[in-house]
Amino acid sequence: MLDPVKVGILGLGTVGGGTVHVLQHNAQEISRRAGRDIVISHACAKVLNKSLPYSTDNILLTEQLSDVVNNPDIDIIVELLGGTTIAREMTLQAIAQGKHVVTANKALIATHGNEIFTAAQNKGVTVAFEAAVCGGMPIIKAIREGMSANKIEWIAGIINGTSNFILTEMREKGSDFAKVLAEAQSLGYAEKDPTFDIEGIDAAHKVTILGAIAFGIPLQFDKVYKEGITQITAEDIQYADELGYKIKHIGLTKRTQKGIELRVHPTLIPNAQLLAKVEGVMNAVMVESDALGQSLYYGAGAGALPTASSIVADLIDVTRTLTTDPGNRVPHLAFQANALVDLPIVPIEEIETAYYLRLSVLDKLGILAQVTNILSAHDISIEAIIQKEPIDGSKHVSVVMLTHKVLEKQMIQAIQEIEILEGLIGSPTRIRLERCA
Amino acid sequence: MLDPVKVGILGLGTVGGGTVHVLQHNAQEISRRAGRDIVISHACAKVLNKSLPYSTDNILLTEQLSDVVNNPDIDIIVELLGGTTIAREMTLQAIAQGKHVVTANKALIATHGNEIFTAAQNKGVTVAFEAAVCGGMPIIKAIREGMSANKIEWIAGIINGTSNFILTEMREKGSDFAKVLAEAQSLGYAEKDPTFDIEGIDAAHKVTILGAIAFGIPLQFDKVYKEGITQITAEDIQYADELGYKIKHIGLTKRTQKGIELRVHPTLIPNAQLLAKVEGVMNAVMVESDALGQSLYYGAGAGALPTASSIVADLIDVTRTLTTDPGNRVPHLAFQANALVDLPIVPIEEIETAYYLRLSVLDKLGILAQVTNILSAHDISIEAIIQKEPIDGSKHVSVVMLTHKVLEKQMIQAIQEIEILEGLIGSPTRIRLERCA
Repeated sequence: MLDPVKVGILGLGTVGGGTVHVLQHNAQEISRRAGRDIVISHACAKVLNKSLPYSTDNILLTEQLSDVVNNPDIDIIVELLGGTTIAREMTLQAIAQGKHVVTANKALIATHGNEIFTAAQNKGVTVAFEAAVCGGMPIIKAIREGMSANKIEWIAGIINGTSNFILTEMREKGSDFAKVLAEAQSLGYAEKDPTFDIEGIDAAHKVTILGAIAFGIPLQFDKVYKEGITQITAEDIQYADELGYKIKHIGLTKRTQKGIELRVHPTLIPNAQLLAKVEGVMNAVMVESDALGQSLYYGAGAGALPTASSIVADLIDVTRTLTTDPGNRVPHLAFQANALVDLPIVPIEEIETAYYLRLSVLDKLGILAQVTNILSAHDISIEAIIQKEPIDGSKHVSVVMLTHKVLEKQMIQAIQEIEILEGLIGSPTRIRLERCA
Repeated sequence: MLDPVKVGILGLGTVGGGTVHVLQHNAQEISRRAGRDIVISHACAKVLNKSLPYSTDNILLTEQLSDVVNNPDIDIIVELLGGTTIAREMTLQAIAQGKHVVTANKALIATHGNEIFTAAQNKGVTVAFEAAVCGGMPIIKAIREGMSANKIEWIAGIINGTSNFILTEMREKGSDFAKVLAEAQSLGYAEKDPTFDIEGIDAAHKVTILGAIAFGIPLQFDKVYKEGITQITAEDIQYADELGYKIKHIGLTKRTQKGIELRVHPTLIPNAQLLAKVEGVMNAVMVESDALGQSLYYGAGAGALPTASSIVADLIDVTRTLTTDPGNRVPHLAFQANALVDLPIVPIEEIETAYYLRLSVLDKLGILAQVTNILSAHDISIEAIIQKEPIDGSKHVSVVMLTHKVLEKQMIQAIQEIEILEGLIGSPTRIRLERCA
């Protein structure tokens, strides 16, 4: 058997600890598959939790990142520092030293991936990032390799477990957003500062990566339309349910005649869709491609062990390519670097979706006619309409409508006219609707 | 760019035609990914359908298999002959000529895979078979590479689209088996001779392969327990539904203390499971593994284009490894050939499952007490029991029970004693039940 592959790990937090645990606990299964041992020889950690469920006996521990990144004995660096500043520096430094890098850092790849992959390409090394999208699910592998024969049409996914947990709880318990967020925080499903998850930033990092590997375009996080779940109410979840839909936070990337769509936002999904049945912290990604048709991938999108599952799978993949000439490896963004195409990204105003609209009105004849006239004037046709007694027992009435597909900018114009109608209470609620079919 | 990779294809039927179509239609996407063109240079077909949606202009057509298999210009052979005799000969001959082979032939791999992979290993070539399990879904890749860090515990899948279509139609329309089978045949979802699908043989081929790559055991089709869907009635489907279950034809392989289970049979699955929501001809495979936890893969399990999707993905993978030393490729059965372990296969009598039982009895006090006494004497405890007026309007009564987990051999003994009770009409129906949790 060949000598062990030596891995240096930057960061021994939750995911780093999980990675060491999986490599040790499944060492036999891993070397039976890889044909050689894969061992963590060096680790950099500022604080070491001695009560962790793995042994650090054979790991050289240091507080200096450079001790690991510059060590000539190390073949592969696992970057688990988080953030994008030091993580970027260390990744580029490891590449410059001719080392391969495995990372779970979606923010790093989404914002600095183009630079990092170019550096890696020039140096003939691999930067692997399966763990950066949907934790343990092998979705990067499925799209980059499993669907390599296909022209991909769109990808729609539940790719933020925290948001899906909150929406699931809101629906099942009828609780409001703030209460469920607090519960998610106490369970460890949401961070103390939950901004990245609930404002759609984490999902936007993942959509950036999914769009790039699906369509062969550069990574462009800045162009993703980002909308989180903070405005979703238990009332809307209940009305959607009555109409046969679930409200999910969806990341979506799609090939259209105008270019590529990159967007994350709350979305009504028909109950019959498998995506609508994905509950709690689980993730799922549906892909539509020309030869395979629809396929779906479901699993744990976060957590120490699932994320470690992807990191170690990447370590095994990289180990197998150590002797491969770089030109024959799977390209970072699925397509050869010189075959990437800078397709336009469609601005949100130019996107077409159906809509769920909810208006709170004084129970007064006439306002409904005015609303439908405005919609009609903007070529927005209504597919379903229900009038509901308010859930909170107040005197106004909720009018809920589903529209056919409409350009976002037309909807914005219509809403502006509706908003100033007399008898309307507050602003209209609008949530996009996708059939994913 | 490197020279095109030349592929010779054996068989230009539905899947062969689909493969040529995908390679031509998506040629640009494929070479953008693979970094070189992949072209069919030779094809062997006895009858050529000139009306197919692809061009044969640059393909050298022949009726002699050896013209393709022995041609020194060809890098990779795609075997789409079907059957296991000539297919085996041609595959071994191609390997002997130093050619890589891509195949969609599950029967070939399940029954002759050990011999074929040994020959390939000795010659330093790859035999790729993603298309052999669940058509276009990249399930082999997900398990062999995506889950390579994991100890896999079990795999349960809806892996025969014909059976799933028939069971779905029977439930939705309340039709009986024979009627729906005839409908499936007229729609092209079932063969004229449907034996392989409805008797569980096709699913057993796939379970053989899934078990081998999950646990690192040799392929052993003969040891798979095979039971098809021919005995399932609309009545049982309806009773299962009332109890909160769907009846699905499931292929299952599992690691237990006694060894490895390999079995295919109709199975009650709780409605809340994603597997229970997979309808029509679609396939889905759920995997439980120690680091990733539960993950699920869903897609088209058959059809010309989905199957071609996997064949072409394999062609791209093989193309990438043309310059890799054989020791660093992904091993055929996920584990290195010298690391396979011949774990015992558990005989069906030693398997533990819960059960759905249906007894048809004359409406007579006492028989239910006798039945429960017999079950109790065999340590079979009952989880739920319902007594139903017969669906067909006859005078007897259906008693439906769900049991807790029990050894198969205990259940067989109990059934033997129940069968001879006075007042019982016909034989008891028993269907295994798995929670997949």
